[in-house]
Amino acid sequence: MSTTATANLPVLYSYFRSSCSWRVRVALKLKKIDHEIRYINLLKNEQRSEEYLKISPFGFVPAFVDNRNGKTLIESVSIMEYLDETYPEFPLLPKDPQDRATVRALVQAVAMDIQPVTNLRVLRYLEEDKRSAWSKHWSEEGFKAIESLLVKSAKTFSVGDSLTMADIVLVPQVYNAVRFGVDMSVYPTVSRLYRELSELPEFHEAHPSRQGDCPPELR
Amino acid sequence: MSTTATANLPVLYSYFRSSCSWRVRVALKLKKIDHEIRYINLLKNEQRSEEYLKISPFGFVPAFVDNRNGKTLIESVSIMEYLDETYPEFPLLPKDPQDRATVRALVQAVAMDIQPVTNLRVLRYLEEDKRSAWSKHWSEEGFKAIESLLVKSAKTFSVGDSLTMADIVLVPQVYNAVRFGVDMSVYPTVSRLYRELSELPEFHEAHPSRQGDCPPELR
Repeated sequence: MSTTATANLPVLYSYFRSSCSWRVRVALKLKKIDHEIRYINLLKNEQRSEEYLKISPFGFVPAFVDNRNGKTLIESVSIMEYLDETYPEFPLLPKDPQDRATVRALVQAVAMDIQPVTNLRVLRYLEEDKRSAWSKHWSEEGFKAIESLLVKSAKTFSVGDSLTMADIVLVPQVYNAVRFGVDMSVYPTVSRLYRELSELPEFHEAHPSRQGDCPPELR
Repeated sequence: MSTTATANLPVLYSYFRSSCSWRVRVALKLKKIDHEIRYINLLKNEQRSEEYLKISPFGFVPAFVDNRNGKTLIESVSIMEYLDETYPEFPLLPKDPQDRATVRALVQAVAMDIQPVTNLRVLRYLEEDKRSAWSKHWSEEGFKAIESLLVKSAKTFSVGDSLTMADIVLVPQVYNAVRFGVDMSVYPTVSRLYRELSELPEFHEAHPSRQGDCPPELR
């Protein structure tokens, strides 16, 4: 666990390849919240160290420490909702309740229906030769559903013309799906959004390959 | 798919044993939102019928149709957030942003870290003799984490002295864990909350065994 202390900034505990960490990295950049990143190496099980479990009792990344009150927040969607409620710049949810519900449904579709079933801890629990087919299956089921919703809701972004949490969670999940060997061309709206969002500086800078804990051979 | 039309009421599409449907059943009762329930039999794959996929493109229950605007909402947590934003009676989130984040972290811990990994569609994808150990393992991991958070946050309810979404999602998940054979006595705060919440009429009436689509032998 790298703990280079700096000025009194909010702290994000992150792992370069964690899609949930990536979500919060983007949210912090969109909201222009200056912060320090501390790296937790999931492959070395640093998330299970006594020191880290005091920060996040769940032993997951990300965790976020708010420097305004010293409180620690956990679980990526909860952190994004908190950031949105307490840092008004660059709202991550639309104003209309119906649109907010569509954004949150898309967030759930990624954050509950795909990510938890295909993340590192679940894959490690499966026999090694079954992991790839498992990840592909659930990614394909999930993106099929997401595409069917995006066809109706997307304009410039996933829901209308403002960037929201739905866009934030989409990019890391597509990146993972491509790693799992999913053919994303059958989800044209998802693919178009992924391509366009990836070019935005906030997503670009939050990319795993641009993190301080990314091994040189993966940059 | 049972579709007995009644007056112009909001409609909940539900399956008696679906923990995600149960969440919304409780939320509707707490907020005293008069509604009609339509039953979708997951064992008969009614959620995959052409008719139902027009309502919920994901083919999941629950789905909620708001009679005020005819719009359909999907994904249980998104539906609860929507109900809370548009029906102010009986708020399901605290006012303080920090407490809201704790509630949402607990919701995520159930709704993302346990439920999606142990639900029917994932179990069906596993070999039959592996299902029980799988469900137990993820339930135990999840409740261990949840207990560690509840020890700090719980008073009368999961977060302080008001009933919130964190309580709503807890009860159905404990019910499932008991069905999977998890020994819940090792999570005393979870067990105490489950016992007390189960006695409230809103939880009692929303219980699977009290639903119109529950087979007589399970009542």
